[in-house]
Amino acid sequence: MPDLDPDLDLRLERMMDVPPATLWRCWTEPELLMQWFCPRPWHVTEAVIDLRPGGRFFTRMAGPLPDGSQADMPNEGCFLAVDPERRLVFTDALQAGWRPAAQPFMTAIVTFEPRDGGTFYTATALHNDTAARDKHEEMGFSKGWNTAADQMLDIARSL
Amino acid sequence: MPDLDPDLDLRLERMMDVPPATLWRCWTEPELLMQWFCPRPWHVTEAVIDLRPGGRFFTRMAGPLPDGSQADMPNEGCFLAVDPERRLVFTDALQAGWRPAAQPFMTAIVTFEPRDGGTFYTATALHNDTAARDKHEEMGFSKGWNTAADQMLDIARSL
Repeated sequence: MPDLDPDLDLRLERMMDVPPATLWRCWTEPELLMQWFCPRPWHVTEAVIDLRPGGRFFTRMAGPLPDGSQADMPNEGCFLAVDPERRLVFTDALQAGWRPAAQPFMTAIVTFEPRDGGTFYTATALHNDTAARDKHEEMGFSKGWNTAADQMLDIARSL
Repeated sequence: MPDLDPDLDLRLERMMDVPPATLWRCWTEPELLMQWFCPRPWHVTEAVIDLRPGGRFFTRMAGPLPDGSQADMPNEGCFLAVDPERRLVFTDALQAGWRPAAQPFMTAIVTFEPRDGGTFYTATALHNDTAARDKHEEMGFSKGWNTAADQMLDIARSL
C-alpha cells in the first residue's frame, strides 16, 4: 500500500477471510461490483470496467435523497494501474484514454495482500488538498467504504 | 498514436531522421530534455524524471515576459504510461504518485514509430473541453511544439 499523508489521504484497512483472487473478481467483474459498490439502499445501476491503464471505469449510482427524490449519479473515471490480484489504481481526475476531467476529486489505490490465508485489504483515497480530504470524510468515507467492504465480503464468501 | 478528437485535441506529427531510441533518450534523460523542451530563449532550469507510471515529471521553465521581467514557471506532472522507445504518456491532471492536481489542463501522448530508418513522431495533447483546447492553441501549441521538436532533433542528431 502507498505511503499515507494524513493531511491529504483517507484509508480503509481490513483483514478479509477470503483470498486476494476472490476480492479481485469482486472489483473487476461488473456484475459482481454492482452488488456491493454502494452502501445499500443506494445501488449501482450500470458499470463499465475496461481493465487496463487508460481504460474507462464508469459507474452509475442511484438512491434516495433526503428530500425523498431519487438520485442518479454517473461517475466517470480512468484506470491508472492494473496489477492482477495485487493492486488497482483509478482516478476521477482523468476520463477514459487519460483525458483530463472537469472536476478532479480523488485517486483511489486499492491493495490486496495475501495474509494468514486471507487478504489484508486496503483502500486509500488521495486528494489534492486538505479541504477535499475533509469533504470526503464528511461525505462519509469511513462509514461508506466500510459498509461497501462488508457487502463485498458477503459476495466474496458466496463465490 | 491515439485517435484524435478535433474538438478536444491538438497534435503535432513529424518525420525525424533519427531512430526512436535516440528520441526516447531526448525525452527521458533530464540533461538532454533541458536542452530542447522549451522554445528558446525560454529554457528549462530544472527537470525531474521518475520514469514509471505514477512517477513525477517536473520541469521548471524560465524566460522573458513581454514586460521585460523574467518568468519562473514550475510544472508538476505525472507519468501515466512508459513504453520504452514507443510511447510516453503524462498529465498535469495528476502529481507524483497519481495524486489529483489542483488545475488540470492536459494529458500528452507522445509516440515514436520506426519508419524508413527514422521515426514518425507524434505528440498529442488531450483536453477536457474545447475551451481548454482553444486556449492551448492560442498559447502557441503548434509553433511552440514544432520549435521544441526542431531543437530536439538538433540534439538527437548530435548524439
